[in-house]
Amino acid sequence: MDNIDYAELYRTDLLNNVIPFWLKNSGDKEFGGYLTCLDRQGKVYDTDKFIWLQCRQVWCFSMLYNKVEKNEQWLDFAIHGAEFLKKHGRDPEGNWYFSLTREGQPLVQPYNIFSDCFAAMGFGQLYQATGNREYGAIALQTFQNILSRQDNPKGKYSKAYPDTRPLQSFSMPMILCNLVLEIEHLLDPATVKSTIEKGIHAVMDVFYQPQYGLILEHVTPSGEFSDSFEGRLINPGHGLEAMWFIMELAVRTDDKALINKAKDISLNILEYGWDNEHDGIFYFRDIKGYPPQQLEWDQKLWWVHVEALVCMLKGYFLTGDERCWKWFEKIHRYTWDRFPDKEYGEWFGYLNRQGEVLLPLKGGKWKGCFHIPRSLFQCWKTLEGIAEKSINQQVN
Amino acid sequence: MDNIDYAELYRTDLLNNVIPFWLKNSGDKEFGGYLTCLDRQGKVYDTDKFIWLQCRQVWCFSMLYNKVEKNEQWLDFAIHGAEFLKKHGRDPEGNWYFSLTREGQPLVQPYNIFSDCFAAMGFGQLYQATGNREYGAIALQTFQNILSRQDNPKGKYSKAYPDTRPLQSFSMPMILCNLVLEIEHLLDPATVKSTIEKGIHAVMDVFYQPQYGLILEHVTPSGEFSDSFEGRLINPGHGLEAMWFIMELAVRTDDKALINKAKDISLNILEYGWDNEHDGIFYFRDIKGYPPQQLEWDQKLWWVHVEALVCMLKGYFLTGDERCWKWFEKIHRYTWDRFPDKEYGEWFGYLNRQGEVLLPLKGGKWKGCFHIPRSLFQCWKTLEGIAEKSINQQVN
Repeated sequence: MDNIDYAELYRTDLLNNVIPFWLKNSGDKEFGGYLTCLDRQGKVYDTDKFIWLQCRQVWCFSMLYNKVEKNEQWLDFAIHGAEFLKKHGRDPEGNWYFSLTREGQPLVQPYNIFSDCFAAMGFGQLYQATGNREYGAIALQTFQNILSRQDNPKGKYSKAYPDTRPLQSFSMPMILCNLVLEIEHLLDPATVKSTIEKGIHAVMDVFYQPQYGLILEHVTPSGEFSDSFEGRLINPGHGLEAMWFIMELAVRTDDKALINKAKDISLNILEYGWDNEHDGIFYFRDIKGYPPQQLEWDQKLWWVHVEALVCMLKGYFLTGDERCWKWFEKIHRYTWDRFPDKEYGEWFGYLNRQGEVLLPLKGGKWKGCFHIPRSLFQCWKTLEGIAEKSINQQVN
Repeated sequence: MDNIDYAELYRTDLLNNVIPFWLKNSGDKEFGGYLTCLDRQGKVYDTDKFIWLQCRQVWCFSMLYNKVEKNEQWLDFAIHGAEFLKKHGRDPEGNWYFSLTREGQPLVQPYNIFSDCFAAMGFGQLYQATGNREYGAIALQTFQNILSRQDNPKGKYSKAYPDTRPLQSFSMPMILCNLVLEIEHLLDPATVKSTIEKGIHAVMDVFYQPQYGLILEHVTPSGEFSDSFEGRLINPGHGLEAMWFIMELAVRTDDKALINKAKDISLNILEYGWDNEHDGIFYFRDIKGYPPQQLEWDQKLWWVHVEALVCMLKGYFLTGDERCWKWFEKIHRYTWDRFPDKEYGEWFGYLNRQGEVLLPLKGGKWKGCFHIPRSLFQCWKTLEGIAEKSINQQVN
């Protein structure tokens, strides 16, 4: 099977399967926004509106409009979500709630700063698509609010007793590495530069542990290992997603050493995170091999596998390391054999360790219109890049 | 196999397997309290001290001293835990923290009122064992604090936006039904009576839904069904545990109708919660058959199965309903084939849907020295009661 077939597969599934599924099933014509709790067939089974998923869907349709095709239906669908969010999504201080009722009443308080991160991403892309300054202002204000909250993201909702075991969390610098590129057009270059430098330092020098070749989810404020449940936690999907964010940042300055390091780390993570008994990538592991607290540790999740595909393709495209291509083909086979729903369209999200469907939903509290379409797009474009490179090499 | 053999099996496993395992492995001689994160062999893999598990272990050894044998080693071990808790367990307002470091520094704030419930249980049993008034006072103060916090148990740690979707939770009245008997010797009879009446009403008239024959985990303040993730949630193990609490309360007033109702509900719960494909009792289900949010919904947990055993035996002992005995034998076979660790002693806690060990731990954040020994004791004594009844019937 050559590269062109893969690219076509990813493109077709994005444009003919996944995006039509969300366009058809998730718009809330009555109250605005999206209904993201969809069963196997696409029918709504719950109407709660989770800010993460609302914002990510705005981002997705805006991104497709910006990068694939000026399709007005996509843009209208993004605006449909953004207008609901603009009206109902924030508390009086501009913090984004975690969830709302269908009508837009706040349900869960703004305890989770990633709601704000996805809001900044969504409104940033939509500003780029529309030029509507109001969307740009929302993205920028939200970003500034994230920076001011980043050292104490849970605020008064934190249950940790102060100072007994302070830990810093990988997810914050990791998402900033991606977010800063998403809203670069709204920021001054000095902020972009310093955010990128800090992000790369945190991911590659603080959370990455050279003695293990792996990335920890939590370390002490001075970057040391914490021998605790949180400190021992490894989330392979998280690490793989972060490694392709880092590769994107490294490309900007043509930092080949950084690209190579990110690629090598991602190969380590895959070796470590792969389930040699049943295939697929574990959701969580304990770095000392102890039992993790997460009962779902052995499950195979959609986002982990598609982020791994993006990471391996970028690694291969940027470095030519054949191990990346081999891993891509192996993960591709595992993923495409199990996650896409051949009967009702879109993809399953949750498989058990054996690779069987654990929950037949297409959308829920955490799965929405985001990782699958983003990864299909990223894979499609990277596969095109690989094919072009290969043609150029044959010509030269 | 006759009843006497079962009783002997439960007694022997309690006294020769489970209790020695915790006595041998979990005492923290250096800092006091218990080390409950034990691997398959009983070795400590983490030293955090979770208040639930510390208190439950104090309860367990005090209860055995009170009800099985005046074994000074058991009493000393209970006091060993209680002294650590007395010193480190509470904030200045008397609320029990959720967890402490090994040394006793608070780690997680008192956001969880069940820490207080298990503290009241533990200190109540220990007061009965020792007559030490200080322990009695701690139990009583904690109980009064629970009553004052019961309508807003999470307090400032609640992430729910006020009044959008207020829900009452089954776990609160359910645990009070058990706790009130545990500390009856510390309460005035009027408090006991009113707590029992309110508890029975909440469990049997509010959370129990006659149209389904099942118990909901959350209902609206007026007791209505809430068509939301929380409102649709069924936790079969919770319901079964509650039904034997109710049977114990009903025995006090010889309320045969209530005993029968609790027995019938528990049979419904088992029919509904049983996994007909792989056997065992599911952890969670959605009453409308939608995908639950809990990714661990299909796992088979130790406490669910042993609480079901107690419930079926009490149902059989009190009503003679043969269906209870049949279910007991079926759950007994499933449970004893899979949970006890024949190689290293004690019981596994977490099986996957197929009944294979998911996590090999003997203790962790949630599993400690509680459900297994309590249930082994309850089953042993109830089986003895069944045998005596049978002998009496043969004589008469």
